[in-house]
Amino acid sequence: MADETPRETTAAEVDDLLARAAAASRPWADRGAGARVVSLRAVADVLDGAADTLVPLAMEEAHLGSARLVGELGRTTFQLRLFAELLEEGSYLRATIDHPDPDWPPAPRPDLRRMLIPLGPVVVFAASNFPFAFSVAGGDTAAALAAGCPVVLKAHPGHLRLSALTGSLVDRALASTGAPEGTFAVIYGDAAGRSAVTSEHVKAGAFTGSLKGGRALFDLAASRPTPIPFYAEMGSLNPVFVTGEALAQRGGQILADFATSFTLSAGQFCTKPGLLFVPSDAVTDAELTEAMAPHRSGSPLLNERIHRGYVETLGALRGHGAVRTVVGDDDAYAAAPTPTVMATTVPELLAAHHDLLVECFGPTALVVEYADEGELLEAAEAFGGEITAVVHGEETDTIVPRLVALLSERAGRVVWNGWPTGVSVTEAMHHGGPYPATTAPLHTSVGTASIDRFLRPVCYQSMPGHLLPPALRDDNPLGVPRRVNGQPEEA
Amino acid sequence: MADETPRETTAAEVDDLLARAAAASRPWADRGAGARVVSLRAVADVLDGAADTLVPLAMEEAHLGSARLVGELGRTTFQLRLFAELLEEGSYLRATIDHPDPDWPPAPRPDLRRMLIPLGPVVVFAASNFPFAFSVAGGDTAAALAAGCPVVLKAHPGHLRLSALTGSLVDRALASTGAPEGTFAVIYGDAAGRSAVTSEHVKAGAFTGSLKGGRALFDLAASRPTPIPFYAEMGSLNPVFVTGEALAQRGGQILADFATSFTLSAGQFCTKPGLLFVPSDAVTDAELTEAMAPHRSGSPLLNERIHRGYVETLGALRGHGAVRTVVGDDDAYAAAPTPTVMATTVPELLAAHHDLLVECFGPTALVVEYADEGELLEAAEAFGGEITAVVHGEETDTIVPRLVALLSERAGRVVWNGWPTGVSVTEAMHHGGPYPATTAPLHTSVGTASIDRFLRPVCYQSMPGHLLPPALRDDNPLGVPRRVNGQPEEA
Repeated sequence: MADETPRETTAAEVDDLLARAAAASRPWADRGAGARVVSLRAVADVLDGAADTLVPLAMEEAHLGSARLVGELGRTTFQLRLFAELLEEGSYLRATIDHPDPDWPPAPRPDLRRMLIPLGPVVVFAASNFPFAFSVAGGDTAAALAAGCPVVLKAHPGHLRLSALTGSLVDRALASTGAPEGTFAVIYGDAAGRSAVTSEHVKAGAFTGSLKGGRALFDLAASRPTPIPFYAEMGSLNPVFVTGEALAQRGGQILADFATSFTLSAGQFCTKPGLLFVPSDAVTDAELTEAMAPHRSGSPLLNERIHRGYVETLGALRGHGAVRTVVGDDDAYAAAPTPTVMATTVPELLAAHHDLLVECFGPTALVVEYADEGELLEAAEAFGGEITAVVHGEETDTIVPRLVALLSERAGRVVWNGWPTGVSVTEAMHHGGPYPATTAPLHTSVGTASIDRFLRPVCYQSMPGHLLPPALRDDNPLGVPRRVNGQPEEA
Repeated sequence: MADETPRETTAAEVDDLLARAAAASRPWADRGAGARVVSLRAVADVLDGAADTLVPLAMEEAHLGSARLVGELGRTTFQLRLFAELLEEGSYLRATIDHPDPDWPPAPRPDLRRMLIPLGPVVVFAASNFPFAFSVAGGDTAAALAAGCPVVLKAHPGHLRLSALTGSLVDRALASTGAPEGTFAVIYGDAAGRSAVTSEHVKAGAFTGSLKGGRALFDLAASRPTPIPFYAEMGSLNPVFVTGEALAQRGGQILADFATSFTLSAGQFCTKPGLLFVPSDAVTDAELTEAMAPHRSGSPLLNERIHRGYVETLGALRGHGAVRTVVGDDDAYAAAPTPTVMATTVPELLAAHHDLLVECFGPTALVVEYADEGELLEAAEAFGGEITAVVHGEETDTIVPRLVALLSERAGRVVWNGWPTGVSVTEAMHHGGPYPATTAPLHTSVGTASIDRFLRPVCYQSMPGHLLPPALRDDNPLGVPRRVNGQPEEA
């Protein structure tokens, strides 16, 4: 399997796989959370066990380093196991019970019990930049399977053989734990992906990638005769704002960490800090050059398409009259491009807004000088939807509260004195943000809350106990946390 | 104000109102939940105090009865006060804290704190059939204001003077409690509504009405350069399935309650039971006629447009070869139409699927005979997205568990031995469902969970306490229920 590049899935094959996914919907949901826990852990175990085959193949196809990929595979199987824990805990169901109340205004309240149920088959589009954690068995797949939804995974062309191998391992683990046939499938080719988004069998879509690709699929999903939710996590500029005080206290460390963060995995993260705002004349070219010294070697990018996009966008930025290149080799456009640091000022940035506030996916960042706090705030207001925004400041900085407030209106995650790369998979994580960071500002694609995307509420009115799902029965046989009559239920 | 029909809002006025709403966003959100509680209660008090003016005007404009409108106004002010309680309780914020954990896989976890914040200005489209509860100060407005979002309310043309009067009362209550200017405005005319949906100032939309109208606005919202969530609650057929055993035990009561439910407010509810499935030959024409006896008088419909739509759809149904009229006067199409009951069979219904499974908004319903349990289940599977589905059965009916399971996949609320009209406003209520019941299957438009539509998560990483919103600070000064490290926080 690992030796052969899979061919594109034909239209007839896609139809067949989607029909099987639809047929698997009820049995996969009906097996219950307990059975899904076993299946998710089995997938994690099988992937961990195959690390020696998976990691070298990912290195070959995605041009990423071994340590990074070993860590990413660890994150992937951790995610699967974290969703298993979430299912065991049960609060994700949002089980809510209102007992009958004859005095409820304006009319007596019947017995009402609500919980979340799976939406149905989900099509997941794998990302280029996370061949494990946002690919075949990545976060979206784990969340959808955990929710009780079958998954049809559209493989990313950047790592097709890895996708096929991972897919076969997932299939094997699911089958060995009794998951219904059709619960999971991998499809190949853009036409197959579009066909899945428009299929009546598919009830939701998830995507990680470019603004252009994500928006096109979102439009397809929204314009169906029966529209479906389409959760696209797309581009982000991830601006970083450094106060004068922070720079005075620890400027060298900030620049060194900035250089590490934006060059990590050749700058190919959704959360790469793309802009660094610093006070005018506070950072010299020599300091930037020194900070970049450990990161000057080139790395091949994930794939040819990303490389072409990088060269084109970087060229436009460097060629822009408002931009000056501070660090940038002749190799900046080579097959293994070396990192580039550019510089501009806030007035120039704002004047050339549409040209300069663009994501350049790869090892480059723009340092932007602000003359005063007014310019700093004006710059912060120029951002629309960001996955992250960062403030480096001191607690005594008087500008910081206003800056943090402005940024929380514009970003999904606001980071204090840290760096946005290195997204922790937890309950409180939010990896999303207003458009264009995502098409769905209410939702995250990282962390356990990402399961919400694939569940919808159903309410049962006056239903006898034996007809209710176990989570809503009086005796609460699953021990699920619930709210009863507006209060958390006593255990 | 109540004497004059408001003119259409001009494009320039809409722009101005939306700019004011955008300017009010931060101050309205920043006032905090406590201040919003005061404002919501003031709106409720002012409306209750004006009942003697509001109700007669609603009777005149919407052709609904006094008792119904008094009850509906009571529900409207109850909703406002229920949202105030929700804000005081605080769990709607979903405050979640993950403390740093050096052993978290695959890399140390930083301090992460997430809560929900307001989306920004919301445009709400008022419904024709609830001049209070889904109109100017109705559920969508209450939810959005409670969330901390300014509201621009597009008045329904069916009750324009009532909208203007209600709007002025809401304005007065908000102003008297210190809400920022721009927090609320009423606009008039379809062009004004469309213009609001496409405005860059608007961050979400909510709508209650027809499939055609809701879908057009959803398409407008989804095709913006920056798409926004658009929550349209649209049509529903609300099928009712009666088992042979239930009919044998209490057929007379079921038919009498059915007649009451579908003729309530002249059948102009989203939850009107449009189809009643009964065993073949179990219900005679005479029994249906008898059940209809108390409901034979005619009522004018809400407005001329709805009357035209009713006459057209009813005419098509009655003229269809598969449909037989059981109860239907010459007055069925009059200005104050009398109720109509039609009949068909499951095979005929399924054969004429697209012609017969259409919502006919008004005082009519279709009785459908099924030959056996196979036909009953086949009929249940024919439904797509419904707000409600009802089963009348006995606990010993063996078909019932499969029927309830099928219906919970297709409806937002599944009712046992009851009727779908009379929607209780509670925490566990779900008023929504898969498309075409709504454009947003994850959300409800009734009940406290409807606030979720207007909130989005933001996550703070490693943020010092004084820069965090109060709900996320260590000392929890607001006493908000929170989850900390994956567990409910001890009070």
